[in-house]
Amino acid sequence: MSQENSHFLEEMFYPKSIAIVGASPNDPESGWMGRLINFGYGDRGEIYPVNPKATEVHGLKAYATVRDIPGPVDYVVFNIPARFTPQVMADCVAKGVKFVHVFAAGFGEIGTPEAKLLEQQLLETARKGGLRMLGPNCMGIYCPESKMTFNIDFPKEQGNVAFVSQSGAESMRLVFLGQDVKLYFSKVVSYGNAIDLDAPDFLEYLSADEKTRVIALYIEGVRQGPRFFAAIKKCLQKKPVVILKAGLTESGAGAAASHTASLAGVKSVWDAFFKQTGAIPANTMDEVADIVQALVRMKPPRGRRVAVVGRGGGIGVIAADICERAGLKVPPFARETRDKLTQLIPEAGAGVRNPVETTYGMGGAADFYRRGLSIVDEDPETDVILIHMAIDVYGSRTPNLAKLAAEAAATLCERVPSLKKPVAVGLFSGGHPDVIAAVTAARDKLTGAGIPVFSGVESASRAINKMTNYYEFAGKQG
Amino acid sequence: MSQENSHFLEEMFYPKSIAIVGASPNDPESGWMGRLINFGYGDRGEIYPVNPKATEVHGLKAYATVRDIPGPVDYVVFNIPARFTPQVMADCVAKGVKFVHVFAAGFGEIGTPEAKLLEQQLLETARKGGLRMLGPNCMGIYCPESKMTFNIDFPKEQGNVAFVSQSGAESMRLVFLGQDVKLYFSKVVSYGNAIDLDAPDFLEYLSADEKTRVIALYIEGVRQGPRFFAAIKKCLQKKPVVILKAGLTESGAGAAASHTASLAGVKSVWDAFFKQTGAIPANTMDEVADIVQALVRMKPPRGRRVAVVGRGGGIGVIAADICERAGLKVPPFARETRDKLTQLIPEAGAGVRNPVETTYGMGGAADFYRRGLSIVDEDPETDVILIHMAIDVYGSRTPNLAKLAAEAAATLCERVPSLKKPVAVGLFSGGHPDVIAAVTAARDKLTGAGIPVFSGVESASRAINKMTNYYEFAGKQG
Repeated sequence: MSQENSHFLEEMFYPKSIAIVGASPNDPESGWMGRLINFGYGDRGEIYPVNPKATEVHGLKAYATVRDIPGPVDYVVFNIPARFTPQVMADCVAKGVKFVHVFAAGFGEIGTPEAKLLEQQLLETARKGGLRMLGPNCMGIYCPESKMTFNIDFPKEQGNVAFVSQSGAESMRLVFLGQDVKLYFSKVVSYGNAIDLDAPDFLEYLSADEKTRVIALYIEGVRQGPRFFAAIKKCLQKKPVVILKAGLTESGAGAAASHTASLAGVKSVWDAFFKQTGAIPANTMDEVADIVQALVRMKPPRGRRVAVVGRGGGIGVIAADICERAGLKVPPFARETRDKLTQLIPEAGAGVRNPVETTYGMGGAADFYRRGLSIVDEDPETDVILIHMAIDVYGSRTPNLAKLAAEAAATLCERVPSLKKPVAVGLFSGGHPDVIAAVTAARDKLTGAGIPVFSGVESASRAINKMTNYYEFAGKQG
Repeated sequence: MSQENSHFLEEMFYPKSIAIVGASPNDPESGWMGRLINFGYGDRGEIYPVNPKATEVHGLKAYATVRDIPGPVDYVVFNIPARFTPQVMADCVAKGVKFVHVFAAGFGEIGTPEAKLLEQQLLETARKGGLRMLGPNCMGIYCPESKMTFNIDFPKEQGNVAFVSQSGAESMRLVFLGQDVKLYFSKVVSYGNAIDLDAPDFLEYLSADEKTRVIALYIEGVRQGPRFFAAIKKCLQKKPVVILKAGLTESGAGAAASHTASLAGVKSVWDAFFKQTGAIPANTMDEVADIVQALVRMKPPRGRRVAVVGRGGGIGVIAADICERAGLKVPPFARETRDKLTQLIPEAGAGVRNPVETTYGMGGAADFYRRGLSIVDEDPETDVILIHMAIDVYGSRTPNLAKLAAEAAATLCERVPSLKKPVAVGLFSGGHPDVIAAVTAARDKLTGAGIPVFSGVESASRAINKMTNYYEFAGKQG
């Protein structure tokens, strides 16, 4: 069980029973019922299929209406067309349900007077009945701890990242991007039209959620502006908040108006908000995932000076440029550091100034990690270590490629935890299947050990910069 | 055979015989000899292993010295330590060799007086003997047409992209990045220390090379400045040139000085050069690959207004922002276009303004491609079509995911060639193996049909912007 959060949403994230209205024996395994069963919710709560035409769904007794369910019902999913929702909502009120999740679309977002009226009626029924509503037009909740999910492919692993998303598809994208690097979630909420429960509710809950260390937010438009901004500030007092605010350009604002009828807001207002609060802006979902990974897995750096380590001279130069363009610096190491590195890798010639060019072959990389990383860690002129690994350049025919790449990754797993500086790995992918397999294995190994892995130097440096901005801001706030 | 290019380097790219000095029976298949044999060079020219201690290497008769080879020798690879190179160079001069490629490092780049002297001696011998030299400290030539390669994993397919690279590892990276999207090369030169043949030589050759449609260049430092810039301008009169100029930041300049002892040059000079010549600047090797792909595969657009098409409302808003930040616009479609799209996809509600939100499921995507793309193509308010495909969001359990994704890709392959507007596809990857397989198959199918595929909207829009800049500049030049 969760450590109790006294916020009223605790029962929404950890319901003791869930009813699926509109569950059908014909639903695929990936439907609402199948997901819950597959995810193991049955081990911690009751699942009630509701369908007047069925006696049993996926092996569980079906009920004609929510009112017919014998035990108490905490949470109800409306997996039914919009037009049937008012009656089911009335049933839920009669039953004393606490939370409903209206999955169906076809409400305010389509803009017709009828649809808006339907939405309004639904809200009134819920309000009068003292019941809180998620949606309509949303995917709802993913909470591995309470075994709730809206996608059968989502990982069962619990993590400490929360994601509040106005878009259902984007909520899935972030979970999958996270899964690629073994970054897992405490809670994800896709909240859709938000005619009742809205972003500030989730943020207020998450600010006090001990299971959540980092909060990410995808948002197009803001209602209840002051409450929304106050909720973010409340979160920021305790943990970082990464925000993908879509619709900040003219093109994007037009698109947002079409998508969720959101007034996207003025860019200057948001710029000022980010500057004043220390909330972390991101422009793409990949960037959100990268920043979150940096925040969860990297120690706060002392500053923004990067030590770059890896095989290849050209990539070192490119990496230094990328770092500086991202807002970081790649300064020369202290004389003492350079002397020690020259002793270690005399054949590298000039490649010890920063970037460090490790010697040829993956074996050379592992060897440098084993003996050289601690020298870089002691360097007084740099604050962060960025290791780039380009397994593709070694080529598929490198004898024992898989073994060498695994050894390099294993050596990092062994050495990184003892380093004082935060470490990031930029792991380039490759085209040859053998190289892809070696890259994937290395990424799994590294991220499994909690070492952050990015798709390259550009994404790594961007994330390091934004993470550093956050800590600098937080530091100034005392 | 190649159409004759009267430039003297034609014989370097298409030698009739190659000797490998330092070839050994113990070399792996991926060594210099094995690569040439594996690549099929033996079908078009003679391969001579040179090794005084061997009688045969990989099934071919070995010679003690280059002088002992019976027939004429056009091209010699020095696969030997630096200290042995002067003697072999003298042999090559005596033999009447036309080109030598000094693979070995340990010359000017390590900075010792001895190494610099060795380099100087090598150059003098070559010059006196009328022989031209590639290197030292470089990978040399990859030319699928003449079956020369420096990496056994390189594709045998010929393409129309040339790459001139000061870095060996980066030359490999671009070839592999290209291979991922079936983008192939006419010629790649890794030229290293360039004490004799240098970037301007290759550029002058490529400007007249009918096999090359787009030129990419990775460069850290420039010697012979005026000749170099003149050579690029000469290329630009006939074809686009994409340049990754590394070392343009303070951090990068320091790194470049260490890597190739290059004076990285002043950023303002390069900024002015790019502005005045229409050469296309890129910051990362991925960006080089993306821009090249856009140039090779997309028609010149009339302007920079993008029609965005794909499943998912949130990604549409994000995409619009990304496009505008990249220098493009996502304006509303003309009224007529919107009316036609509304008729086609009434349930999409507002998602016809631009971005277009295709209906749910990959089947819906294929259906839209079949019936809706031509409407978008006729829209007068947009110039380029950017299709984003997020197969991951459909999830691995989508019934027939692979089949649906394949159908979507096949439909694009069928429809895109008849469209008047240039088309780009942003294909997001995914975490689940089944999704990755579907993405990979879709990418292979699309790129096989010559449709450009990018890793997402960000990389696509960046490439479209830079391609458009190029055509706008070229258009102004008349």
